[in-house]
Amino acid sequence: MVEPLPDATRKYFDVCQEKLGMIPNVLKAYAFDVEKLNTFTAMYNDLMLGDSGLSKLEREMIAVVVSSINKCWYCLVAHGAAVRQLSGDPVLGERMAFNWRTAKLDARQRAMLLFAEKLTTESHKTEEADRQALRDAGFSDRDIFDIASVAAFFNMTNRVASGVAMAPNDDYHGSFR
Amino acid sequence: MVEPLPDATRKYFDVCQEKLGMIPNVLKAYAFDVEKLNTFTAMYNDLMLGDSGLSKLEREMIAVVVSSINKCWYCLVAHGAAVRQLSGDPVLGERMAFNWRTAKLDARQRAMLLFAEKLTTESHKTEEADRQALRDAGFSDRDIFDIASVAAFFNMTNRVASGVAMAPNDDYHGSFR
Amino acid sequence: MVEPLPDATRKYFDVCQEKLGMIPNVLKAYAFDVEKLNTFTAMYNDLMLGDSGLSKLEREMIAVVVSSINKCWYCLVAHGAAVRQLSGDPVLGERMAFNWRTAKLDARQRAMLLFAEKLTTESHKTEEADRQALRDAGFSDRDIFDIASVAAFFNMTNRVASGVAMAPNDDYHGSFR
Amino acid sequence: MVEPLPDATRKYFDVCQEKLGMIPNVLKAYAFDVEKLNTFTAMYNDLMLGDSGLSKLEREMIAVVVSSINKCWYCLVAHGAAVRQLSGDPVLGERMAFNWRTAKLDARQRAMLLFAEKLTTESHKTEEADRQALRDAGFSDRDIFDIASVAAFFNMTNRVASGVAMAPNDDYHGSFR
Amino acid sequence: MVEPLPDATRKYFDVCQEKLGMIPNVLKAYAFDVEKLNTFTAMYNDLMLGDSGLSKLEREMIAVVVSSINKCWYCLVAHGAAVRQLSGDPVLGERMAFNWRTAKLDARQRAMLLFAEKLTTESHKTEEADRQALRDAGFSDRDIFDIASVAAFFNMTNRVASGVAMAPNDDYHGSFR
Amino acid sequence: MVEPLPDATRKYFDVCQEKLGMIPNVLKAYAFDVEKLNTFTAMYNDLMLGDSGLSKLEREMIAVVVSSINKCWYCLVAHGAAVRQLSGDPVLGERMAFNWRTAKLDARQRAMLLFAEKLTTESHKTEEADRQALRDAGFSDRDIFDIASVAAFFNMTNRVASGVAMAPNDDYHGSFR
Repeated sequence: MVEPLPDATRKYFDVCQEKLGMIPNVLKAYAFDVEKLNTFTAMYNDLMLGDSGLSKLEREMIAVVVSSINKCWYCLVAHGAAVRQLSGDPVLGERMAFNWRTAKLDARQRAMLLFAEKLTTESHKTEEADRQALRDAGFSDRDIFDIASVAAFFNMTNRVASGVAMAPNDDYHGSFR
Repeated sequence: MVEPLPDATRKYFDVCQEKLGMIPNVLKAYAFDVEKLNTFTAMYNDLMLGDSGLSKLEREMIAVVVSSINKCWYCLVAHGAAVRQLSGDPVLGERMAFNWRTAKLDARQRAMLLFAEKLTTESHKTEEADRQALRDAGFSDRDIFDIASVAAFFNMTNRVASGVAMAPNDDYHGSFR
Repeated sequence: MVEPLPDATRKYFDVCQEKLGMIPNVLKAYAFDVEKLNTFTAMYNDLMLGDSGLSKLEREMIAVVVSSINKCWYCLVAHGAAVRQLSGDPVLGERMAFNWRTAKLDARQRAMLLFAEKLTTESHKTEEADRQALRDAGFSDRDIFDIASVAAFFNMTNRVASGVAMAPNDDYHGSFR
Repeated sequence: MVEPLPDATRKYFDVCQEKLGMIPNVLKAYAFDVEKLNTFTAMYNDLMLGDSGLSKLEREMIAVVVSSINKCWYCLVAHGAAVRQLSGDPVLGERMAFNWRTAKLDARQRAMLLFAEKLTTESHKTEEADRQALRDAGFSDRDIFDIASVAAFFNMTNRVASGVAMAPNDDYHGSFR
Repeated sequence: MVEPLPDATRKYFDVCQEKLGMIPNVLKAYAFDVEKLNTFTAMYNDLMLGDSGLSKLEREMIAVVVSSINKCWYCLVAHGAAVRQLSGDPVLGERMAFNWRTAKLDARQRAMLLFAEKLTTESHKTEEADRQALRDAGFSDRDIFDIASVAAFFNMTNRVASGVAMAPNDDYHGSFR
Repeated sequence: MVEPLPDATRKYFDVCQEKLGMIPNVLKAYAFDVEKLNTFTAMYNDLMLGDSGLSKLEREMIAVVVSSINKCWYCLVAHGAAVRQLSGDPVLGERMAFNWRTAKLDARQRAMLLFAEKLTTESHKTEEADRQALRDAGFSDRDIFDIASVAAFFNMTNRVASGVAMAPNDDYHGSFR
């Protein structure tokens, strides 16, 4: 981490500590360069916490399903905990991480995860028919942009985390079980 | 696109028009939401144009190799042109896009692209030995962070572009041939 | 389940209830046919609880790594809990389930899991060199038989469980966290 | 092999010799440990020779199709011979071993082999729709259990055989041609 | 190349030079053995230039799509140029080479390329239903033979070119852009 | 088949009947067009029967190994018989068809089949190091051309045969067992 941290960063980390009880290791991993940290957090916060037709839980479900395909240790632990927290259903978090098809999902969420899965494993075969399936399940074109963006974002973070061997904070493991 | 565009965005687009002769379609695709546009351009500019032990050409080579594996139409066209431009070698751009192993590369660039390829196709198998191979080829740990980040970023953009069917500007096709 | 259960089966279930606090759902799933239940439990008990040069924890690690590749909901939940219990290390169980390469393993356990992984994903390429790598890591030929047998067994149970949609007992999820 | 063989094992081997003209090498391979041999033969005999809605030929067809995907030398030779014998159709055995889709099958057997194939290659994607396809082809839920169990069993034996390099008896090769 | 070249070969090369402005490197690569050169050119000319229900452009589209899957440097360059030339559409050539699904195709050409793709990636799963899909799109059985033959031919040439590292003539790169 | 067959074709078929006891179905499949038949047989005869540093048996071994990966019913049956015939070893033919790694091969033949396998499954990754491995095993560059050509040729014929559903002559099945 750069020393000293800029005030804005310090404050952001204090908020994390207060609200989450920890500073997520991914933030510390980026903190050797404040610009990189800022671009990461700006994109993360917009995608995962900003306005969207997708609920926060749905966005976290996409995060975990993508991370499960990519077997990303960091993201499975951190976002698995988020699914457990947001859903209040500890088993749902494990289902997303282990095999999302075992979860009882409505047609909307199933369509959403099928699209995220296809984008992850064979994005080049995505066609208008795949987008139409999302519309048929009730998603708007803006929602489709968000599904694609969230799935794509975790295809990025999974690879950064695996590429530089990021390890998740220990506190995630036992939380919301 | 939001109407009217904020001044900063308008200026950014004007700079694009002036320097590139076009506004890249990816920017227009994000311009329905200025926050999303900004987070995308901030990350892109930091990664591809900011300080790094990797040359801009090397970063574009990673972009094209990743996009070739993912068969992303938008990124292959736009970043293939960038490799042609930055290298002054039109054939190199096509080699990166069609099959990077056909290019005559020094040990450094070969190691860099092998790592980017592995992160793209089986990121979960990345191990310390893979990072050590980069160090042995002369890369610092900061460089490794940048290789991973650039490879990961295009694993994101490839999927956004394919997910929402972005089409590259026609001007790329004939440029720097 | 057949009604009434034969005495021996009833006793076996009582022992499970007493020692594990539950009757594992896999046993109930087989109990429609006592012969099938008996052949399953006989093989399971011999492989996982019988004499072997592999510790019980090592056998459970193989079980989870194989089940992770096959994304078997039942086995990941049940045997992930077993790794947590036997190792006293809740994080180790999640590492095995999410991405075993993130675990710090000695050369012996790494060789063991590489062999189990190869048997699971491309068994037809197993060659004498693969067995020699196990011998070099200190395993005897009898140990190799056991590694192969345990890895193979979970390649069976994963497919039975997924094929007929077995669900693990809820009690596993929160245990040994 | 343990020396001397227990009486029951000796008798079982004698029956093999009498009925098959050989002791299958897989039995000799397990005979270093009578308990392992017994658990293997008990499960094998229940699955392949016990009561089932599947004919013995159908079970052998599943065995060969699974072994073909896994390229298991032992099982392709031994169970290919069994398909030739039970069907009285030497070409059918080769079709199952080389490419089952070239065989003219009725809807029932095609559905059965599609399910066995999916369980072998991507078991985690097995869903209720796959089981419904079997029911639509006339299979009961008990039959589905048997299809899954037989397919799963050969996913086990293929890996034991490849893992420890079992070689089939030479007598299989020319038989029932 | 054999020295001197037989008269017929010399004439053939002169025709190439005159009509194409170059002698394609593949011909020079085969010219160490005139019989091999002749069998190659005879098959090539029959398939790509002979009578067929497929237009020459369609055959070149198949060539590029197959070569894209196999990432064949030589064939992507040479036949990418041919698609640009025959279609008069420089972008179409790049679409075929980078990701054919991004091209706007009519139902006939889409069916043709889906079949070529399947033959390339999982030929053993080709079934009557796949051929029927081609008939439904307007192709005759003779046309199907030609689609299969052209797709298969480039699955051969891709592997010869990659196997012996053939490099395409430089003149292809800038042509018909 | 065209009627009447040209004299040369008729004679060729008569020779087949005399020497092989049959007219291979592949020839009949091509005989609807004499030019296609001739280009096929010319290439086949040059590659499989012409001068080469590879023995005829070695070429047939490549044919079967490639066809095994592609699961081509026609070629596995016809060339499996050829390996049985040329080697006088019926088991060797089955090993090549089922899993070539189970065969005891010298370093030369193992290197040859590894190269053929790589060309078949991931030809784009073939590099100078792969060719050097062949040279180290005693092959000349001309031999490498032949290995690549034979492996490539069967990657073609496998796809024609599967694409148009060619069935091998029944006489192959029982021969040379």
